Amino acid sequence: MWDRIWIDVHLATLCPEAGAEDENRLGIVRDGAIAASDGKIVWVGRRDALPDRPETLARDVVSCGGCWMTPGLIDPHTHLVYAGDRSAEFAERLEGVSYEEIARRGGGILSTVRETRKASEAALLEMALGRARRLIAGGVTTVEIKSGYGLTLADELKQLRVARAVARMLPLRVRTSFLGAHALPPEYEGRRDAYLEALCTDILPEIARSGLADSVDGFCERIAFSPAEIARLFTAAHALGLPVRLHADQLSDLGGAALAARFGALSADHVEYTDARGAEAMARAGTVAVLLPGAFYFVRETRTPPVGLFRAHGVSMALATDCNPGTSPLLSPTAVMNMGCTLFRLTPIEALEGHTRHAARALGLESGCGALSPGLAADMALWDVAAPHELAYWIGGIQPVGRIFAGIPDPEPSCARITSPPLAV
Amino acid sequence: MWDRIWIDVHLATLCPEAGAEDENRLGIVRDGAIAASDGKIVWVGRRDALPDRPETLARDVVSCGGCWMTPGLIDPHTHLVYAGDRSAEFAERLEGVSYEEIARRGGGILSTVRETRKASEAALLEMALGRARRLIAGGVTTVEIKSGYGLTLADELKQLRVARAVARMLPLRVRTSFLGAHALPPEYEGRRDAYLEALCTDILPEIARSGLADSVDGFCERIAFSPAEIARLFTAAHALGLPVRLHADQLSDLGGAALAARFGALSADHVEYTDARGAEAMARAGTVAVLLPGAFYFVRETRTPPVGLFRAHGVSMALATDCNPGTSPLLSPTAVMNMGCTLFRLTPIEALEGHTRHAARALGLESGCGALSPGLAADMALWDVAAPHELAYWIGGIQPVGRIFAGIPDPEPSCARITSPPLAV
Ligand SMILES: [Zn+2]
Ligand SMILES: [Zn+2]
Repeated sequence: MWDRIWIDVHLATLCPEAGAEDENRLGIVRDGAIAASDGKIVWVGRRDALPDRPETLARDVVSCGGCWMTPGLIDPHTHLVYAGDRSAEFAERLEGVSYEEIARRGGGILSTVRETRKASEAALLEMALGRARRLIAGGVTTVEIKSGYGLTLADELKQLRVARAVARMLPLRVRTSFLGAHALPPEYEGRRDAYLEALCTDILPEIARSGLADSVDGFCERIAFSPAEIARLFTAAHALGLPVRLHADQLSDLGGAALAARFGALSADHVEYTDARGAEAMARAGTVAVLLPGAFYFVRETRTPPVGLFRAHGVSMALATDCNPGTSPLLSPTAVMNMGCTLFRLTPIEALEGHTRHAARALGLESGCGALSPGLAADMALWDVAAPHELAYWIGGIQPVGRIFAGIPDPEPSCARITSPPLAV
Repeated sequence: MWDRIWIDVHLATLCPEAGAEDENRLGIVRDGAIAASDGKIVWVGRRDALPDRPETLARDVVSCGGCWMTPGLIDPHTHLVYAGDRSAEFAERLEGVSYEEIARRGGGILSTVRETRKASEAALLEMALGRARRLIAGGVTTVEIKSGYGLTLADELKQLRVARAVARMLPLRVRTSFLGAHALPPEYEGRRDAYLEALCTDILPEIARSGLADSVDGFCERIAFSPAEIARLFTAAHALGLPVRLHADQLSDLGGAALAARFGALSADHVEYTDARGAEAMARAGTVAVLLPGAFYFVRETRTPPVGLFRAHGVSMALATDCNPGTSPLLSPTAVMNMGCTLFRLTPIEALEGHTRHAARALGLESGCGALSPGLAADMALWDVAAPHELAYWIGGIQPVGRIFAGIPDPEPSCARITSPPLAV
């Protein structure tokens, strides 16, 4: 007998029917049913194809009142673990204070590094849990979390331990990435080579040994690390058996996407300036393009990623919040889907694929989650919408009316409260 | 004895201190206290200035756990009452279907008119309540709702009755606007003058008699109504004692803002193309500029409203969702604040003023709500933020952790669920 079955539901399975790619790319099943046991999906199909009455098939029968169900959303690129508040910096910039002045006052990314280093592991965890709860309220069941605000072995390990702790404390899958190559630590100013040496020879092997990092990430940009430096890092990562991913071609074309592809990267992220050569290389390597419209919008970029090239070459496109305090304070995946459509001209179908099965691929989890298919994790979201394309329609995003993680429905409406302070004495 | 007092709270009263406009434009009171009786604010100040211990002053003492309190947010421009789903049209446009083709298939604004006419009053109300609940979850306590999808006397009255019913069924203040001059009804195609005649001579007097409209609105644009047509409508409105407001200068400069000002309009809305002459006229008339960044973003406009001119001339700037199915599917006021800052370069202070005291002015309610000041309605929102500027910082918006309407705290966390279908059989 199955643990649980959901009925009175329309399914967007994200399993395109063979030979019907265009007509039913979302794998839609109207008036469907879906069952789970032991955290996994065990049956998906039309309700009238069920072998018996639901209550004879499962211990729990859940009616969804005609809602739509999608796979739980996947956010494949976040910097969720950080301390410090940069909303004051946001205000100052709008009041006319220059970037230089803000940096002089100790603002910018190094302020996040300073605050993250200072914060206790418990304090970091509490802040990360608050943000993760907002993702959960938005329908997220799997999230990638990067380090990169510690930039010392101890502080990077601290960030990664917090990321793992989030997965222990909340109904959420977490994949981690070590982002020691995020920025040059202030204490290495003027000594880039020394940091690269420490990163590759001392820090990375310890990170690998800890088992806390599922992949290695870097920021390839004029203001960060060069392609040669990233190549050195990735070579070291591969020697330790760690897959790689890259912040690539965000502000200029340094050939970052092609570099990532050369190392068989799971994903190349941002990719606004990626050219045809980069797109081809990504397609050949199976590297996913993770698009980050929140950062594009927040920093008022004008160059959009080459969506047409990615389509033409068959590069999978994922979407992510890029949640971070400096360039993308954003915790709503459906807001990302709307920006993907409005700003990057994705279709709503591509936007939904981008936060489900393509996002799973970007995390190397395509055989674990990201679609409604037997054998995959029973991670689902329920939406009170007219059709799946409505998920990308609302500016600012919408929230699901229910969420299921590993077969278990969230007990309470996963309310989008940051915290709920006691209001009555 | 007061009904209720809130303590352990920082206040953004939106009452600038006399002579300290720049330093404390938000009227911030750290470690404040605020009391209400009979739905009105009766005391605001520093907690240590309270005349006695809180529990001796009020029947109810509410601790806010160090949160920030602002006036309840005001959304001064929405089209909340409509039927039909235009998310499919959104998807079609992104799949490359032209506007012309969509119109040929019966899409666009006239599809909303068709569906709204067809819908029963009960069905319209249910849909409007769902949207209003999402505004409430976003911290809204006062909303303006326009008609304009009926375009016959009976259907416009139906929309306005639904708007009034929303206020009876939810803890929400509602102001209504009659927007018969939204689009030419299909049955008047080629007979503009006949519609204007019917509008001014037959429909408007009945609307006025019904008492269902608090103001008269129009859409002044090449694709809608000319300045001369709007002037005729406004003359009729004034003769009936109704104040006016206008959708002005959104897509071209027809002098709409100046026209609105000439009629002493409460607000001129959109105003992307308003010039210096228009800004001057608005300042002289006290007409508020209602900025609608959601529509700007959704239809990918490039011309931003002349914020610098409005500042220079002292025109009050308000912000609104413009919630409507065709050009601004948006129900989060803090998402609007973020777009106001990111896209229009408002400061976070201006953005908060825009959804509070300036929005109250746009509705003629400045002596009723929009600030935390004795005598005003006790409409408040509680936020778990580091400082008020954080309200504008999050892309996609954030939600308050509590909301108070007419002195009464929402019983439940005002969760952003569209509906909560019963999940367990
Ligand atoms: Zn990033
Ligand atoms: Zn409007």
